[in-house]
Amino acid sequence: MTPSGAVLAANEAFYAAFEARDIDAMDAVWEHSDRVVCTHPGWARLRGWEAVRASWARLFAGPQRLQFVLTTVDVEVVADAGWVHLDENLLDGGATATVAALNVFHRDADGRWRMIVHHGSTVVGG
Amino acid sequence: MTPSGAVLAANEAFYAAFEARDIDAMDAVWEHSDRVVCTHPGWARLRGWEAVRASWARLFAGPQRLQFVLTTVDVEVVADAGWVHLDENLLDGGATATVAALNVFHRDADGRWRMIVHHGSTVVGG
Repeated sequence: MTPSGAVLAANEAFYAAFEARDIDAMDAVWEHSDRVVCTHPGWARLRGWEAVRASWARLFAGPQRLQFVLTTVDVEVVADAGWVHLDENLLDGGATATVAALNVFHRDADGRWRMIVHHGSTVVGG
Repeated sequence: MTPSGAVLAANEAFYAAFEARDIDAMDAVWEHSDRVVCTHPGWARLRGWEAVRASWARLFAGPQRLQFVLTTVDVEVVADAGWVHLDENLLDGGATATVAALNVFHRDADGRWRMIVHHGSTVVGG
């Protein structure tokens, strides 16, 4: 698999974990370190795996069940860093919204790409 | 200068250009390529230097004069990629807002760090 393909596979695993509300799968997607950052749309940014994990656990415990249609997916890789830009087209029951997202991954010593940044922002009128 | 210091200096040059509404300075901050991405708060993402530059030219031609107080600035470097997380505390006349921002830079062959991503999202209630 090319580096770009591996980053895209890691990115897909993130959205699969999100849709499935599967905290164990989310554990496997992210790097477990103090440098990871997650900025949910409209939220202040969360830094460090402990805070980031807690946010996913809380979201998954809530009533919201999101489905994603991912569009305009672009991937870039520079050595051991890779990032994916995409639009999350969200289906939340009958409502829809578009979130512009940036996901950053780092390849660890074992060659596994782990998420280190997720940043989403709602597109106004999107 | 350390790589982290150089990335922070490039980040400061970005905000200096933004505050000064200086399109030439913004030209010098960004990589001029098709892969650059800029997502202003609430906007759909813009890809490619032509579209990104046009957005800055348009913002700078408008009436809005922003001042920034940057807080909780964190920098990470992996080889030739570096990124900065921070909160932009905006002063827009009498109004204030907080934008969670992520800026990504790439070190080119001449050793210069150029911006390749700017992503800002308004913190609700921030």
